Amino acid sequence: MQHTFRLVIDCPDQVGLVARVSQFLADHGGTIVEASHHTDLQTGRFFMRHEIGADSLRLNYDSFIEAFTPLANEFQMNWKLTDSRAKQRMALLASLESHCLVDLLHRWHTGELHCDIPVIIGNHPQMKQFADWYKVPFRWVDFKSLGKEQAFSQIETLLESYNIDLTVLARFMQILPDTLCQKLQGKAINIHHSFLPSFAGARPYQQAYDRGVKLIGATCHYVTKDLDEGPIIEQSVKRISHSDSAADMVRKGKDCEVNALAHGVRNHLEDRVIIHRNKTVVFA
Amino acid sequence: MQHTFRLVIDCPDQVGLVARVSQFLADHGGTIVEASHHTDLQTGRFFMRHEIGADSLRLNYDSFIEAFTPLANEFQMNWKLTDSRAKQRMALLASLESHCLVDLLHRWHTGELHCDIPVIIGNHPQMKQFADWYKVPFRWVDFKSLGKEQAFSQIETLLESYNIDLTVLARFMQILPDTLCQKLQGKAINIHHSFLPSFAGARPYQQAYDRGVKLIGATCHYVTKDLDEGPIIEQSVKRISHSDSAADMVRKGKDCEVNALAHGVRNHLEDRVIIHRNKTVVFA
Amino acid sequence: MQHTFRLVIDCPDQVGLVARVSQFLADHGGTIVEASHHTDLQTGRFFMRHEIGADSLRLNYDSFIEAFTPLANEFQMNWKLTDSRAKQRMALLASLESHCLVDLLHRWHTGELHCDIPVIIGNHPQMKQFADWYKVPFRWVDFKSLGKEQAFSQIETLLESYNIDLTVLARFMQILPDTLCQKLQGKAINIHHSFLPSFAGARPYQQAYDRGVKLIGATCHYVTKDLDEGPIIEQSVKRISHSDSAADMVRKGKDCEVNALAHGVRNHLEDRVIIHRNKTVVFA
Amino acid sequence: MQHTFRLVIDCPDQVGLVARVSQFLADHGGTIVEASHHTDLQTGRFFMRHEIGADSLRLNYDSFIEAFTPLANEFQMNWKLTDSRAKQRMALLASLESHCLVDLLHRWHTGELHCDIPVIIGNHPQMKQFADWYKVPFRWVDFKSLGKEQAFSQIETLLESYNIDLTVLARFMQILPDTLCQKLQGKAINIHHSFLPSFAGARPYQQAYDRGVKLIGATCHYVTKDLDEGPIIEQSVKRISHSDSAADMVRKGKDCEVNALAHGVRNHLEDRVIIHRNKTVVFA
Repeated sequence: MQHTFRLVIDCPDQVGLVARVSQFLADHGGTIVEASHHTDLQTGRFFMRHEIGADSLRLNYDSFIEAFTPLANEFQMNWKLTDSRAKQRMALLASLESHCLVDLLHRWHTGELHCDIPVIIGNHPQMKQFADWYKVPFRWVDFKSLGKEQAFSQIETLLESYNIDLTVLARFMQILPDTLCQKLQGKAINIHHSFLPSFAGARPYQQAYDRGVKLIGATCHYVTKDLDEGPIIEQSVKRISHSDSAADMVRKGKDCEVNALAHGVRNHLEDRVIIHRNKTVVFA
Repeated sequence: MQHTFRLVIDCPDQVGLVARVSQFLADHGGTIVEASHHTDLQTGRFFMRHEIGADSLRLNYDSFIEAFTPLANEFQMNWKLTDSRAKQRMALLASLESHCLVDLLHRWHTGELHCDIPVIIGNHPQMKQFADWYKVPFRWVDFKSLGKEQAFSQIETLLESYNIDLTVLARFMQILPDTLCQKLQGKAINIHHSFLPSFAGARPYQQAYDRGVKLIGATCHYVTKDLDEGPIIEQSVKRISHSDSAADMVRKGKDCEVNALAHGVRNHLEDRVIIHRNKTVVFA
Repeated sequence: MQHTFRLVIDCPDQVGLVARVSQFLADHGGTIVEASHHTDLQTGRFFMRHEIGADSLRLNYDSFIEAFTPLANEFQMNWKLTDSRAKQRMALLASLESHCLVDLLHRWHTGELHCDIPVIIGNHPQMKQFADWYKVPFRWVDFKSLGKEQAFSQIETLLESYNIDLTVLARFMQILPDTLCQKLQGKAINIHHSFLPSFAGARPYQQAYDRGVKLIGATCHYVTKDLDEGPIIEQSVKRISHSDSAADMVRKGKDCEVNALAHGVRNHLEDRVIIHRNKTVVFA
Repeated sequence: MQHTFRLVIDCPDQVGLVARVSQFLADHGGTIVEASHHTDLQTGRFFMRHEIGADSLRLNYDSFIEAFTPLANEFQMNWKLTDSRAKQRMALLASLESHCLVDLLHRWHTGELHCDIPVIIGNHPQMKQFADWYKVPFRWVDFKSLGKEQAFSQIETLLESYNIDLTVLARFMQILPDTLCQKLQGKAINIHHSFLPSFAGARPYQQAYDRGVKLIGATCHYVTKDLDEGPIIEQSVKRISHSDSAADMVRKGKDCEVNALAHGVRNHLEDRVIIHRNKTVVFA
């Protein structure tokens, strides 16, 4: 994997903006491995992601930050620079279903997902076996005996103590309290097992079965306090027919969940997703 | 196209049912070109469609009906026998958008849709040009001057006078009154430009744009008095991204609409769709 | 999971065939959970699969076989009866890539794949770690020191000693000798990482990259001595673009491989696949 | 539709290139409606497409060309500037199948394809009826009486006399002679009815049926003298099963052909396709 810096920007659109950023990069010798632009014509907001060959630059990470800051301020940018070698710390929250958890662990194990996984948290103890295989610490937070409030307080403490950058709800069947949603804004990803906004809420496959749809799906989105309303990162669907029972749909839907979550997480980890109001720009 | 009879049955499931129907067909020499079965395990209802080589049978249409009736009564069947040579009479209702209308007309013209189209009805006059090309009578029902009630009464009269078997709303932008929905039950097909139940109601592409979904789609369903709630026959979806404006989504969605409607109508015309409560069995 | 018997038949088509089979089932009280028929109109061959509620039958497995044999002989059937509770014994052959192997193991572990996995065989030792996690015996056959002929002879012995019913090549990067292909006919499944017949042979992703296709895919097929020419069970594809390098295509293609192989294997294990000459009938 | 200029460039990659182009645009007040970049890391070639608000620019078309030429020369660019209001002149070549022809005509008629269609050329007279409906001159080139050489010479003359920019073979069942392929390089688009490179050559659906694939498809590509080997612009596939006859596959495949061709042509007309050796960059 080539060593790169990723410069991700969003700001009000303006003539000359791209020129100034490109000139900055050129002035410091930066070769552009990948560049993506988008202007939201409705809101006049501009989005840009550059992946720059780190070895080509005559700046290191810190001096880049310092040198770029005046330009960023001039154009009122939200921006960040990330080093492709730096790994985000990702926590996985799981319950009783293993398919999403195991898929993410395997992709991480083979290097497809570039991150650290310092902890897996379960509201049931069953997922410990998979955590052990992959040598990831497993923490069981016993919702039953602790009660919901206490349990989430414990999770919050765990996320802090492990310095977690990204929290992934891999079919975690508990609704996060508003305060935690607020705190993890833009840093927590959930997989919902329907093609939202269809079948929000509980038991989406049963809802889909009852409605008689010909497609089922899954939605990977950021967690917000409005349940199942967060910015969508990725969706995946699959055809079904009258011959599929609700149980068949659960089984078939798992492939959608696994795919949507894996791609959503990967794009987030590579700084390809920018949240804009209740939507996302995904430079995939 | 081979000349066949289509025997379509739904009834309570029972041991020996398939044997009796199959024996009936064998006794009269019938070769089975295609056979499809389905049991709804929740409701215990059985569905069956046979396509039988007409030339192999020692029964004509009328004598088949007569001979089969006692068996049908014994098993409390809803059933029908259709002759593949008999063409259903299909009316097309349209407004200002031509893509679904022209697609159906072309498939009919080339023989892909096996039916007659004795009339096209518009609530605007613009679609007359396409009707003329395909030499189909066009009737403009002027909703503005007639008012909604009078206009629909006129449409109802037209459907009756043309002996219409199937009414297709090819992006017809008027909501049918309850009484007409009731009357056309199982005989009127609509195309909704979203993957229902997402974005029911008006302006689905704008809704989809505002919600930031990563898929758009279309749903072909039977018309019922509960708007956008009718049994779904077919759905089609397409990936979109942040770079698609609401206008792009309208454009891209048309392909979904055209596909879902064409396949739904085709399956209906070939007696492949059976309505069961608020869902469909589709022997595609 | 309901206890069923699966009756799978292929034979020359004949009037009265379905009636006789259905009558046989009805005479012994059998409720039909699922029934699928197909007639190949070109060759006049008939294919049928019934899934019959075992508890409803007044026959056990052995007496069913005995009672059905005369009918089967009369109609010159290739046929089999399987008990849904009986598990096939599946061997997995792997090399260095873990994605297909781990996916199958996880689906087996969660009960989605109903079979036993008595052994995993590797031509490299690396996959042992996953075998250990799932507590499946791992046998390393060292192709380098043994030589190809000796190595395959050892594999053949292993398959025999473990009484293997189905051999799955989960990205096993060795070409089976003709005699072994012959012996495993209809009982060995491979995953090829292209949408065959495109890019048969070695390095299909590089071939796809060089040709500039806009789709990549994978093909699950039975192993035959004509390499990459065996009957296809399942295919899966994915869109790519100019921005995907050959390495990206490898990564993205893995999801196709995993899906196509998992579905092919599942359909085989549920006796849903019938081989007819160089093709398959799949009652999915 | 917003009035834009499209600046399309390919050249050797170089640090500072984007900065210089962006600065040029900024210097003349250009707002960037859409920008796409791609670097082919294997060949070191850079591709760029800008869509620039024409009203924002202080240059008209001619003065832009003049002002930009020195920069273009400095960086050894292949480049073009097109005016979104200027319509390419597209000729359609057809034989006996109408589905692709009629689809393109309808998309053109409704404004989805922004071009002129000054002529339709047929090697059979049957497509004249559709040409007449859309009021496009139809020219029948009688291959039978003229012979192939004479006939193609006549087609060449027609393309010249109508000042054709883009020639689309909408299921035109004649192989263009090498000299004409050469002459129309990058300006002639064909639709092949298979997912190339599978089933190149004649009767692809029959080939697909005989091979027993589970997917059929279509490929939109530039015409080159090596038949079915031209740079691929777009591919589309569809699932099929054992129950589909070769005739069913022909019918179902038409939807793939229509889609792949329509999108390929649209992308070409919007200057979104750049040919690079035997492949394409498509900024869709």
